[in-house]
Amino acid sequence: MQVKNINEIDESVVTMEGAVGAKMRLLISENDGAENFAMRMFTVEPGGHTPFHDHDYEHEVFVLDGSGLLKGESGETRFKSGDVIFVEPNEKHQFVNAGDQPMRFICLIPALNKGG
Amino acid sequence: MQVKNINEIDESVVTMEGAVGAKMRLLISENDGAENFAMRMFTVEPGGHTPFHDHDYEHEVFVLDGSGLLKGESGETRFKSGDVIFVEPNEKHQFVNAGDQPMRFICLIPALNKGG
Repeated sequence: MQVKNINEIDESVVTMEGAVGAKMRLLISENDGAENFAMRMFTVEPGGHTPFHDHDYEHEVFVLDGSGLLKGESGETRFKSGDVIFVEPNEKHQFVNAGDQPMRFICLIPALNKGG
Repeated sequence: MQVKNINEIDESVVTMEGAVGAKMRLLISENDGAENFAMRMFTVEPGGHTPFHDHDYEHEVFVLDGSGLLKGESGETRFKSGDVIFVEPNEKHQFVNAGDQPMRFICLIPALNKGG
């Protein structure tokens, strides 16, 4: 068993094209022996966003702090702290910080799929 | 894509033998089309705990609120809000609320493994 604090884990800037003001911490992954799925935490500054993109794996998201817009091909949905979000494989999606404070969320993906 | 708030999701008492003062919400699961892993949220009252048990699948945990003790066969480790915990398959474990406020954590498991 391992217990670690998020502040002990390195944070990196998300450099994927289309990302603005977004940072990521890899909280639990294959590096820890987690073979099935990985837990990441994203912090997005006000006005920032993740890329508008899709991929062949799902996201399971828990919103920790702040509020934002989840953009898809058919429109956008507001979300806030305490919301959970499921993005299916191959759905275009983008997380936009529409508030005035940093937006933090946990985002899990299956193992063997790198990226976000 | 789905966005829902945790307060819209039914909460049930954890009735597994050895659980005391613990409730669970199934946040994202196969019912939502999530085929690979499931996200649950547990709320444990002060003095309460989950069962001391093991199973053949892992836990990936994010601690939202409160503090507690993670008990295992070789001792116990303190944890608090903002900690992440990885429990490997077949490790005995128990989450104990050692604080004076409700303890809330997210706990993810692979799909096809029911229970906690």
